[in-house]
Amino acid sequence: MPKKVLLLNGPNLNLLGTRETSIYGTATLPAIEQNITEIFKQQQIECAAFQSNSEGGLIDWLHTHRESNFLLFNPGAYTHTSVALRDAILGIKIPFIEIHLSNVFKREPFRHHSYFSDIAIGSVIGLGLYGYEAAARYAIDYLQRS
Amino acid sequence: MPKKVLLLNGPNLNLLGTRETSIYGTATLPAIEQNITEIFKQQQIECAAFQSNSEGGLIDWLHTHRESNFLLFNPGAYTHTSVALRDAILGIKIPFIEIHLSNVFKREPFRHHSYFSDIAIGSVIGLGLYGYEAAARYAIDYLQRS
Amino acid sequence: MPKKVLLLNGPNLNLLGTRETSIYGTATLPAIEQNITEIFKQQQIECAAFQSNSEGGLIDWLHTHRESNFLLFNPGAYTHTSVALRDAILGIKIPFIEIHLSNVFKREPFRHHSYFSDIAIGSVIGLGLYGYEAAARYAIDYLQRS
Amino acid sequence: MPKKVLLLNGPNLNLLGTRETSIYGTATLPAIEQNITEIFKQQQIECAAFQSNSEGGLIDWLHTHRESNFLLFNPGAYTHTSVALRDAILGIKIPFIEIHLSNVFKREPFRHHSYFSDIAIGSVIGLGLYGYEAAARYAIDYLQRS
Amino acid sequence: MPKKVLLLNGPNLNLLGTRETSIYGTATLPAIEQNITEIFKQQQIECAAFQSNSEGGLIDWLHTHRESNFLLFNPGAYTHTSVALRDAILGIKIPFIEIHLSNVFKREPFRHHSYFSDIAIGSVIGLGLYGYEAAARYAIDYLQRS
Amino acid sequence: MPKKVLLLNGPNLNLLGTRETSIYGTATLPAIEQNITEIFKQQQIECAAFQSNSEGGLIDWLHTHRESNFLLFNPGAYTHTSVALRDAILGIKIPFIEIHLSNVFKREPFRHHSYFSDIAIGSVIGLGLYGYEAAARYAIDYLQRS
Amino acid sequence: MPKKVLLLNGPNLNLLGTRETSIYGTATLPAIEQNITEIFKQQQIECAAFQSNSEGGLIDWLHTHRESNFLLFNPGAYTHTSVALRDAILGIKIPFIEIHLSNVFKREPFRHHSYFSDIAIGSVIGLGLYGYEAAARYAIDYLQRS
Amino acid sequence: MPKKVLLLNGPNLNLLGTRETSIYGTATLPAIEQNITEIFKQQQIECAAFQSNSEGGLIDWLHTHRESNFLLFNPGAYTHTSVALRDAILGIKIPFIEIHLSNVFKREPFRHHSYFSDIAIGSVIGLGLYGYEAAARYAIDYLQRS
Amino acid sequence: MPKKVLLLNGPNLNLLGTRETSIYGTATLPAIEQNITEIFKQQQIECAAFQSNSEGGLIDWLHTHRESNFLLFNPGAYTHTSVALRDAILGIKIPFIEIHLSNVFKREPFRHHSYFSDIAIGSVIGLGLYGYEAAARYAIDYLQRS
Amino acid sequence: MPKKVLLLNGPNLNLLGTRETSIYGTATLPAIEQNITEIFKQQQIECAAFQSNSEGGLIDWLHTHRESNFLLFNPGAYTHTSVALRDAILGIKIPFIEIHLSNVFKREPFRHHSYFSDIAIGSVIGLGLYGYEAAARYAIDYLQRS
Amino acid sequence: MPKKVLLLNGPNLNLLGTRETSIYGTATLPAIEQNITEIFKQQQIECAAFQSNSEGGLIDWLHTHRESNFLLFNPGAYTHTSVALRDAILGIKIPFIEIHLSNVFKREPFRHHSYFSDIAIGSVIGLGLYGYEAAARYAIDYLQRS
Amino acid sequence: MPKKVLLLNGPNLNLLGTRETSIYGTATLPAIEQNITEIFKQQQIECAAFQSNSEGGLIDWLHTHRESNFLLFNPGAYTHTSVALRDAILGIKIPFIEIHLSNVFKREPFRHHSYFSDIAIGSVIGLGLYGYEAAARYAIDYLQRS
Repeated sequence: MPKKVLLLNGPNLNLLGTRETSIYGTATLPAIEQNITEIFKQQQIECAAFQSNSEGGLIDWLHTHRESNFLLFNPGAYTHTSVALRDAILGIKIPFIEIHLSNVFKREPFRHHSYFSDIAIGSVIGLGLYGYEAAARYAIDYLQRS
Repeated sequence: MPKKVLLLNGPNLNLLGTRETSIYGTATLPAIEQNITEIFKQQQIECAAFQSNSEGGLIDWLHTHRESNFLLFNPGAYTHTSVALRDAILGIKIPFIEIHLSNVFKREPFRHHSYFSDIAIGSVIGLGLYGYEAAARYAIDYLQRS
Repeated sequence: MPKKVLLLNGPNLNLLGTRETSIYGTATLPAIEQNITEIFKQQQIECAAFQSNSEGGLIDWLHTHRESNFLLFNPGAYTHTSVALRDAILGIKIPFIEIHLSNVFKREPFRHHSYFSDIAIGSVIGLGLYGYEAAARYAIDYLQRS
Repeated sequence: MPKKVLLLNGPNLNLLGTRETSIYGTATLPAIEQNITEIFKQQQIECAAFQSNSEGGLIDWLHTHRESNFLLFNPGAYTHTSVALRDAILGIKIPFIEIHLSNVFKREPFRHHSYFSDIAIGSVIGLGLYGYEAAARYAIDYLQRS
Repeated sequence: MPKKVLLLNGPNLNLLGTRETSIYGTATLPAIEQNITEIFKQQQIECAAFQSNSEGGLIDWLHTHRESNFLLFNPGAYTHTSVALRDAILGIKIPFIEIHLSNVFKREPFRHHSYFSDIAIGSVIGLGLYGYEAAARYAIDYLQRS
Repeated sequence: MPKKVLLLNGPNLNLLGTRETSIYGTATLPAIEQNITEIFKQQQIECAAFQSNSEGGLIDWLHTHRESNFLLFNPGAYTHTSVALRDAILGIKIPFIEIHLSNVFKREPFRHHSYFSDIAIGSVIGLGLYGYEAAARYAIDYLQRS
Repeated sequence: MPKKVLLLNGPNLNLLGTRETSIYGTATLPAIEQNITEIFKQQQIECAAFQSNSEGGLIDWLHTHRESNFLLFNPGAYTHTSVALRDAILGIKIPFIEIHLSNVFKREPFRHHSYFSDIAIGSVIGLGLYGYEAAARYAIDYLQRS
Repeated sequence: MPKKVLLLNGPNLNLLGTRETSIYGTATLPAIEQNITEIFKQQQIECAAFQSNSEGGLIDWLHTHRESNFLLFNPGAYTHTSVALRDAILGIKIPFIEIHLSNVFKREPFRHHSYFSDIAIGSVIGLGLYGYEAAARYAIDYLQRS
Repeated sequence: MPKKVLLLNGPNLNLLGTRETSIYGTATLPAIEQNITEIFKQQQIECAAFQSNSEGGLIDWLHTHRESNFLLFNPGAYTHTSVALRDAILGIKIPFIEIHLSNVFKREPFRHHSYFSDIAIGSVIGLGLYGYEAAARYAIDYLQRS
Repeated sequence: MPKKVLLLNGPNLNLLGTRETSIYGTATLPAIEQNITEIFKQQQIECAAFQSNSEGGLIDWLHTHRESNFLLFNPGAYTHTSVALRDAILGIKIPFIEIHLSNVFKREPFRHHSYFSDIAIGSVIGLGLYGYEAAARYAIDYLQRS
Repeated sequence: MPKKVLLLNGPNLNLLGTRETSIYGTATLPAIEQNITEIFKQQQIECAAFQSNSEGGLIDWLHTHRESNFLLFNPGAYTHTSVALRDAILGIKIPFIEIHLSNVFKREPFRHHSYFSDIAIGSVIGLGLYGYEAAARYAIDYLQRS
Repeated sequence: MPKKVLLLNGPNLNLLGTRETSIYGTATLPAIEQNITEIFKQQQIECAAFQSNSEGGLIDWLHTHRESNFLLFNPGAYTHTSVALRDAILGIKIPFIEIHLSNVFKREPFRHHSYFSDIAIGSVIGLGLYGYEAAARYAIDYLQRS
């Protein structure tokens, strides 16, 4: 059975590429999703992508896709506040990597704590769009090993 | 006028009975809701049940049902993060019991604080599905006294 | 091009005027929104108003209206818990005033911290419905200066 | 061999029914103990009851009855201060439910921490005398399952 | 008997209009006091204004004027350190609004706590000189209602 | 009916007068109890005195004497650790003064917190044996007023 | 040479007897000062009394009277904020008793810490005007012993 | 005059050797007490041993034996909660070594603080029954030096 | 135009040289002020000196002398409590060195925090009267460079 | 001039591949260093590698190589304790990525804080040896852009 | 194969016996090392001893001797600061006892935390040179059992 | 016998004068050491200077020079992390002044705590290279007095 990977982006990440392009570049979220999906496709791995500003919407989507094999997750601001999303991941028992575009440790103290880091395989932080790609390559290797 | 009770379940509780059945048993949420509804029905008390993964969805539902007489509430992960749900209950001034299936005090420290405990009548914690039933029996007695 | 102002109210504020009228008066939220809209209209400033109990819904609405010039914002309980809403405002870079009907400093300690105060122009706290009006007058002056 | 249950009440609970009867009702501790004992008796379960104002006295009694199968425990004020009682329970390895008549989360902050919650099966808090009964019914079910 | 309002400014506010005029404008404190006094005069309300750099001086003045009906108070740096001024206000039982020209929440953490916010009717923060005027308009309405 | 006062001393106070006499003088606890009893007797007030090293023993004695009118209480080390004694006093609703022979604020930080100060009428701290006498005189005046 | 005692009262204590007379009685500060002065006079001890709302004024007065033998000190709100007054007392090395009319431990948490308690002989808290008298009697005994 | 040593064990240590024998071995407390007593006897040093689950009982026993020369003390759970036992030792001024069978630093955070460590000569932690013996050998050397 | 330097000393420093001369020497504050003034005079720099026990008095004096070029400041106890003095210095934008005669880090924990250190050029702590001189030499160099 | 990259490993990383091979694999540190060096070599980028257990040794090496263009840094345990290494990097102003083989957020709380994260470009955590490779690929892209 | 034990001493312990001899005696570190080595030799156990003031030097030595069977470790000041040494021990998986000559709990608060206690078998604290000997005897017994 | 002074500089201070010369000037560490040595030489005081990036190296050097009379010490980043260096100074009992070139209180919070300040005579902070000179002049005076 082909492996399936999820690419999930949290609140405000739909704004990517349309504002602050000097920082984050001009790539829009659909473009990024297409790029990552393509990387997986080359390895015969299916990739489903989703973004929502709603905590409940993100949870619903995870529940719907709970038979997947790996998750690339940028929880955005819910990183710091959402126990419910943490529980959704714990509930569906999916291995995942936490990704942050910017370096959260350079920012406000309340961004230094994550409700996801201790249950993730690992994190890629502050490496911009490359973070998604690096995590995708890890996922491919992970899925080929397992 | 017949009394009306609400049974409200928070995020991820829709997964009940479909996963980790060795811990929580095989009863699904619909089955539980039916069981509790039945207990109230035997006392001529109406019971409306709802579950949502969305904080806003839970608040909306409480507002809609605000002319009810009692609430059995398992806030799930919103226990620890939702001031908005707390305010919804404070706003509609409904007496309620807080219910947790698992013993939150055996888990991570951030689960030891609840935004609901101090405004509830009381709590039933860690007694599994029996917690709903115990709270229902209290509610029946409470409504017959009031 | 005419200036546009947003009036945004967070969770449970839809209950205004229907409960606890001895504290908050009998003015309903639609009446308040109409009153504030009218004040701006007299200055040839357009005003769009919205309320939602959903964090994601509030973020979505802000994104949709991101080409506006000023925001009057009563975040309700999300004041104390929503980094995602903070990020939405940071993302769309809109000047705003934070408004609270009641005096949050008289209430529970967890209401003393706001995720919005340090990124707002300023706050009006505890002055009831007058708070919206005072903020509107500031906004008019602000927009006429800029 | 018939199962044996312990009903243990901590300091000041001997005052039950003799003061503040508007809050706790007029049932005295002996009456409560008799009521719970009766519930167990109907299931052919023996129940031994004890109350003491002395931390050491409570520990001694637990040691003496350490071959029992379940404990219903209202530690009173020792909830918040007694590591020795915690160790007594850990030492005799008896499953138990923690019971509080009043809602400790409505009271002083030092009552929000319990030395027993994380080692109990669960807790019933704030439901008055009904709490003993609810816990007893759980115990019966627990003993019949084990 | 005509109503009387107090306008009280704490330490360093005598420097207004003479330094950092790009931030605070060129209005001097006497000009501001005259402006606010004028607003009240139009409503037949007497307004007495005072500024002092001395904690004791501010307390003395409040005691002397304790038969007044409302207080507009910018405590300056004493906001964060003066229990004695808090007690002076509690002692003379005068309703008041706390005013800050700059947004204290954008500044050092020790400026985030106020000894006055929880005993004030409310606060106007960060709205510059307009804050005095907004508070004055509230006071007029308040006095006309009472 | 004649008024009755309790004089209660906590752990280690039985050592008074037998050790460290250069600090506490050579008066033994029985001598002190007799002295205070005598002061009350002159006002036709009965005084019962007790000391115990046992938390439970102190609680038992308070329960037994709960129909008394006033309590002079030196809780010794239980000042800092006994919620159960606090509850015993709250349970019998007796007005009391907290007395400490030495100045607890000159000592280890854990002695700076008392579980009794906030429910006492007041405290006399660091004034040696005179503290008992000062409290007794207050009690006499209090009982004559009530 | 006759002994000399100081009676010093901090901010807002000049309001005594003129407001909240149901709590503090109708005795004004001058009357209290006269009463205490009289008690000392009977023992051939001189007593100088002073009150100020100014931290600096209180320090100045202490410096001026630094050749005295004992101090009765009610620091009022400066209890919780004035290191400078603490230093003034440390500088002139005068033995003193700290007096509070009300029970500070029943009030806001910031009133639970005193900058004076650990350098005083002791404290009398919550016993109203009697606190001054009790401290005066201790002072008389202290001066006769030394 | 022969030297006298005390061997004191706190709550739950009477269970030694009867439960969890795979961890603590099968030696019962009486056997341990006899072993240690024998070691001292060989050096012509008398040893009195005691165990109690009661804080007050332990204090009473220390008072009774206060003319002794050294104390080997395993305070059990009172390590973390008993200021009264600390005061008893401070009151009788006896040199002592604190002993813990298990490594308290591997356990719950509240077991990391001891009310005895800073007033003991030293501690032996986590070395099982050997800890008593090591402390006894130190005591013998200490008594021969003094 | 000749440069002007301020030498400002806070509360209790007027006692210098009159008490504790074994620690601080017999130099009085006027002598120190004259010494420092003389050092500046030799470099054709004017020096104005002031001391006050009053927070407001110190602020007033700084305002009056705000056209000066450098400040040598020993805030005494106001180091730890005065935001108002901090604001006075921030308001007049004067470069300054913070001086403490004694080593504040050897003293009570509340003396380890300064409201001035982070806005000063630097600090000289614990070097006695030499601290004023060292700071004066730095100021001379600073003024000659600028 | 060709670009130069540093690969620096902190304490205990010399043990890689010789112990706990089931977790970290059998690759030794020299093998890893050779692998990463090879990746850079293919892009005509020089790579110098070093490991030391000594904080000072690591600082010395960084100083010696301070004319380099990028740093891949796994600080090992010095992550949590070394301000000196932080200062060495700040002093030589070299862009770097922080790498951790294991997920530090799954481990002891003192491992959750890093003295490097807030000054790094970003971090790769918990992805094992792949972390070095992912960081190397980022570095190549970074150097080609700059 | 004969067993091998390590005796490792951290920073400043090379000063033993050359200073503060009234406290620590006149035994130098070489003499102590010889004494302990001799105790092991009598049991046919080899003992290697080392001291260094360098964190890295201590780690290097542990790595070199990682095929040993037991460690007696006095980490000196690195007790409170060295995660790297903790990791070295975790990495080589050697059972050890932590030894402190002085009672760290009588000293500054930062000495109350150890990075080694929770991973050691146990600790001997405050018993002077005897601590090494007591630990050695435990080690002999431990090695004979294993 | 001539007096001997030590000048010791911690990690990264070897970079002085080679980088960030706009902040710290172009004086290199050797030049500074020569300058300070010269100042002492003029007073017939010998001065030995040393710098190391290694904590152990600094301790070793202090031990070797422990028969000296005074220490000028800039601990660099070890200020905030090295208990071992603190102990080295305590061990050799040498009077010293702590020097920091930059104002540590303007920087990250972890730089606000020093392990040396409370055991130093005093500190000179933020005065650049002049700090060494000011401390040297104090040392000369100190040595001439002693």
